[in-house]
Amino acid sequence: MDQNMFEKGMKIRRATLGDAYVDKALTQVDDFTKDLQELVTTYCWGEIWGREGLPPKTRSMINLAMISALNRPHELALHVRGAINNGLSRDEIKEVLLQAGIYCGVPAMVDSFRIAREVLSQIDADK
Amino acid sequence: MDQNMFEKGMKIRRATLGDAYVDKALTQVDDFTKDLQELVTTYCWGEIWGREGLPPKTRSMINLAMISALNRPHELALHVRGAINNGLSRDEIKEVLLQAGIYCGVPAMVDSFRIAREVLSQIDADK
Amino acid sequence: MDQNMFEKGMKIRRATLGDAYVDKALTQVDDFTKDLQELVTTYCWGEIWGREGLPPKTRSMINLAMISALNRPHELALHVRGAINNGLSRDEIKEVLLQAGIYCGVPAMVDSFRIAREVLSQIDADK
Amino acid sequence: MDQNMFEKGMKIRRATLGDAYVDKALTQVDDFTKDLQELVTTYCWGEIWGREGLPPKTRSMINLAMISALNRPHELALHVRGAINNGLSRDEIKEVLLQAGIYCGVPAMVDSFRIAREVLSQIDADK
Amino acid sequence: MDQNMFEKGMKIRRATLGDAYVDKALTQVDDFTKDLQELVTTYCWGEIWGREGLPPKTRSMINLAMISALNRPHELALHVRGAINNGLSRDEIKEVLLQAGIYCGVPAMVDSFRIAREVLSQIDADK
Amino acid sequence: MDQNMFEKGMKIRRATLGDAYVDKALTQVDDFTKDLQELVTTYCWGEIWGREGLPPKTRSMINLAMISALNRPHELALHVRGAINNGLSRDEIKEVLLQAGIYCGVPAMVDSFRIAREVLSQIDADK
Repeated sequence: MDQNMFEKGMKIRRATLGDAYVDKALTQVDDFTKDLQELVTTYCWGEIWGREGLPPKTRSMINLAMISALNRPHELALHVRGAINNGLSRDEIKEVLLQAGIYCGVPAMVDSFRIAREVLSQIDADK
Repeated sequence: MDQNMFEKGMKIRRATLGDAYVDKALTQVDDFTKDLQELVTTYCWGEIWGREGLPPKTRSMINLAMISALNRPHELALHVRGAINNGLSRDEIKEVLLQAGIYCGVPAMVDSFRIAREVLSQIDADK
Repeated sequence: MDQNMFEKGMKIRRATLGDAYVDKALTQVDDFTKDLQELVTTYCWGEIWGREGLPPKTRSMINLAMISALNRPHELALHVRGAINNGLSRDEIKEVLLQAGIYCGVPAMVDSFRIAREVLSQIDADK
Repeated sequence: MDQNMFEKGMKIRRATLGDAYVDKALTQVDDFTKDLQELVTTYCWGEIWGREGLPPKTRSMINLAMISALNRPHELALHVRGAINNGLSRDEIKEVLLQAGIYCGVPAMVDSFRIAREVLSQIDADK
Repeated sequence: MDQNMFEKGMKIRRATLGDAYVDKALTQVDDFTKDLQELVTTYCWGEIWGREGLPPKTRSMINLAMISALNRPHELALHVRGAINNGLSRDEIKEVLLQAGIYCGVPAMVDSFRIAREVLSQIDADK
Repeated sequence: MDQNMFEKGMKIRRATLGDAYVDKALTQVDDFTKDLQELVTTYCWGEIWGREGLPPKTRSMINLAMISALNRPHELALHVRGAINNGLSRDEIKEVLLQAGIYCGVPAMVDSFRIAREVLSQIDADK
């Protein structure tokens, strides 16, 4: 494992998902999940999110659409929060999910809006 | 069917996919595909792509990632061409597909790069 | 948005999913979900369900199988209720899900039966 | 393997997919594919298609939508032919694919219409 | 239904998923789920798991990866328990899920580890 | 990029997919695909296949099932060849695909057998 890339990834992961989430994830690391944590931090957050070719805001937009297509509600909720942290407005989140809906179909559209709405309500409640 | 929305959609569809492709699609319209053509042009290209909330270049980026996730090679090829028409550089296409690959998995990453590369070679050959 | 098509869609949506569900959905409409609601009602319920080519009962059967394949449990639950409203017997729901299971695989089959069974139990409990 | 169920399945498979297709499949059976052929004929065509709960025409409609969702072009082509053999009109095939498109998304809709159109053209050419 | 194959399947199902789970499933059998239970026990557990070509431990490894790809959390949880019953160590489960993650993408990897970890914690708590 | 991990991955990739395939892939590397090649070799072949927790033969079995589930025919063909190189017999490939079929559904089962059969015939023809 490339330690520099791991640390680079950890910074971007924290900036996107928030310290609260990442701290909680790290305290839960055990023998079963240690390799997973290192791999995702290094390759996904370091090697990919760490590339200069696209700004974090654009990467967040791409993720919202793509994770809607992949049908992964837990990850979508995380990345709605990440999208807000990376500077998307609620209207921009809405635009991405409407476009995702037309390409992924009505059930995906309805599911993604429900999940996004819950996260946005939690963010409001936490203020 | 809302005629204004259909015409708005047709303009955006032509600007993105190119007149050559759309003209060919229209000459092939018959009883079996007429409703499909109207529906896709009006709802997908008019109602969604016609919204002002995101620029066409961003919509193209989202589509490349999302259609990689959806595993639809024909549509991906179309939208690689559309991405070029909407102003993405080849480096930006590469960035989107690398990000799609980490979230959709290695087989999706390899497939999407192969398809994109073929389309970019055809564009070069057509010059 | 075509107002006539929206209203046509709203009638069919209410007839299929029930007034209780639709009323609840409408009271929750806000800036974030308004466009979604209009799009789904007009495009899905008006333009597609509103076509004369297939009776609602057949459309419900198709949806049960297709939403099993798409792996969307929330939407499947809604459409089990819709299937009953559109005149499917429990035996017909069972037949559709068995066929879906053979084509979508054992995990889809088991998931869809569990979801359908819960909805049918709720319907019994609400009587 | 239940020999009666195998034979029951073979009859229904022939009636749906046509003798020409099934004869060709059977001549290609070898050690690698023999168990596959027996399993699919017995389990899918015998146990499921052989049930009395739904007429073959309805089963064909369900399959067109479901296989569109599953994104399996070879199988979709087979079942477009099967749908014609089981009495669906071209307009009914169109209705099913439009509904599938709204629930599975635009790329699925476009792909399924392209495949269905090719099969219908081949059927016309073979007359 | 082939009664011998059903009984053979039931034995393997019990050995893999555990008597507690299967007994509970059987007490819940009703008119709606009876055919499902028979079909899955006979074809999946009897015809496939009952084949001699692969040991149960290998079949469990394959299932963990495949059900991760299919995105079916309920079934994945069952088969994590089944994997332990069929002799996989926790390290082997980890290996399979890491490989699944690289081919199915980061959201699948994170989801599958979360589900597996919960099941393993329950197993520890039940001791 | 970790050079040692890249080289470790390249060795395993060559041992699994064969020198002919990898040499061809490497001669086609250009600006567009260079990062893809490095990422897949390092991350997938080095970090995952390079782990000691599972033998290559087991990893090949897992891949055949998982790539069937992911519906990626090009990658499946590659990994049928890889499975032979890693010591699977044709009977073992058949067992894996039958199990994949029961969990992924009939269209996946039929597609995967067709693809595997073509690759096995090519291997015979190349002898």
